[in-house]
Amino acid sequence: MTIKAVVFDAYGTLYDVQSVAAVTEEAFPGYGEIVTQIWRIKQLEYTWLRSLMRRHQDFAVVTRESLTYTLRVLGLQQDSDAFERIMDKYLHLDLYPDATAALAAMGDRKLAILSNGSTGMLDALVRNSGLDRVLDATISIDSRKIFKPAPEAYTLIESVLGVPPAEVMFVSSNPWDVCGAKAFGLNVAWIERVTPEAMALACVKSDVVAPLTMFKAIRTQMDELGLEPDYRIHALSELPGLVATHES
Amino acid sequence: MTIKAVVFDAYGTLYDVQSVAAVTEEAFPGYGEIVTQIWRIKQLEYTWLRSLMRRHQDFAVVTRESLTYTLRVLGLQQDSDAFERIMDKYLHLDLYPDATAALAAMGDRKLAILSNGSTGMLDALVRNSGLDRVLDATISIDSRKIFKPAPEAYTLIESVLGVPPAEVMFVSSNPWDVCGAKAFGLNVAWIERVTPEAMALACVKSDVVAPLTMFKAIRTQMDELGLEPDYRIHALSELPGLVATHES
Repeated sequence: MTIKAVVFDAYGTLYDVQSVAAVTEEAFPGYGEIVTQIWRIKQLEYTWLRSLMRRHQDFAVVTRESLTYTLRVLGLQQDSDAFERIMDKYLHLDLYPDATAALAAMGDRKLAILSNGSTGMLDALVRNSGLDRVLDATISIDSRKIFKPAPEAYTLIESVLGVPPAEVMFVSSNPWDVCGAKAFGLNVAWIERVTPEAMALACVKSDVVAPLTMFKAIRTQMDELGLEPDYRIHALSELPGLVATHES
Repeated sequence: MTIKAVVFDAYGTLYDVQSVAAVTEEAFPGYGEIVTQIWRIKQLEYTWLRSLMRRHQDFAVVTRESLTYTLRVLGLQQDSDAFERIMDKYLHLDLYPDATAALAAMGDRKLAILSNGSTGMLDALVRNSGLDRVLDATISIDSRKIFKPAPEAYTLIESVLGVPPAEVMFVSSNPWDVCGAKAFGLNVAWIERVTPEAMALACVKSDVVAPLTMFKAIRTQMDELGLEPDYRIHALSELPGLVATHES
């Protein structure tokens, strides 16, 4: 099999969305973790619901609205400075520590991001983290006005890079994104950062299943949607070795 | 305004999906609540994800797959008898205690269910609970092969009942369904069973926000999707009074 392009999901795959927790904790002491979790789950839900309702708004709007929702249900005061500081972190998310080296090691292929993020958010994030120096393209679903996992979103890879699905390795840690990419026809590597054994053990060990465990349970394990990734890896650092087994 | 038909969501609106907890607790002692919660959240996610991926399967399949997922991530042994007993409860869900009287009081209007449930599941549920005697129609989205909140699902009300959207009162406790129905153009009454104050108080009071609180937080409060219900009520028993203010 020939792999001409390696295309990455951004949020949760190259960038650690959980890294907002430090900022949310600073803004709302004692609530950092729960804000981070509810925010992310509603952010994803809103992308899917808006797509199904044909009421698209860009990811910056969805991200603001899901944060507004989160603070409201938790009964937290909406301090507009704190709100903007939290939102700003989305333009400065931490890269996973092995991301830059993994990308650099695959410089013989086209490298790109395909993300639900808006063009503005992604451009800032990529520039702030220095990935603009290694990526050939940063592709937002903006122009399609529908979010992943809708097939229209994945068509952008061929439109922008000129590489057909059969020659693309798509990389995501998000099970719903893995399933969407497989349903569309891409080769897919799933980054399984939390193993099923670790997950089940965490659930068994906690007397009451804690919110963080519950959140991880519903986000980190492969979904039952009748689709499977082609490859399972546990970290970005494993990716160059996997890609090297294919022609470029 | 003229209201010729009152149309209800089924799961969570007329029928208490949380009533599966007794059966899941019996099957998996200590895990009843967490199984119930993760199962429901994944069941909903899978309807949205399959609709977006254009990989429709009926609600019976989605309900089985989301239960399989739930037991897997919690590390619970898949005992096939227990699995079937839990699934069977979905055909015998408890009605909310005020449901039958509320429906009976509105017998001068057309009364129907519009649900993501499959035709088979809904017919059994309605028969088992005796609602077949008061409902004019039980409408499954099956024939459209796309789940709510996609507009195609809501078009079935006019197709089946012959009543245009402007003369329909749609009733749901699910915020995402309320938004979908509003986006489509129906008159919508939202059953707000948990008030924002109670929700925020529960969050503040618990030292660690508990999974049940978190689950309720992300399911029972009105979403930030740029849409609002026309009416807010707190129980089905308030509905006949509201409907009576409109011509039939």
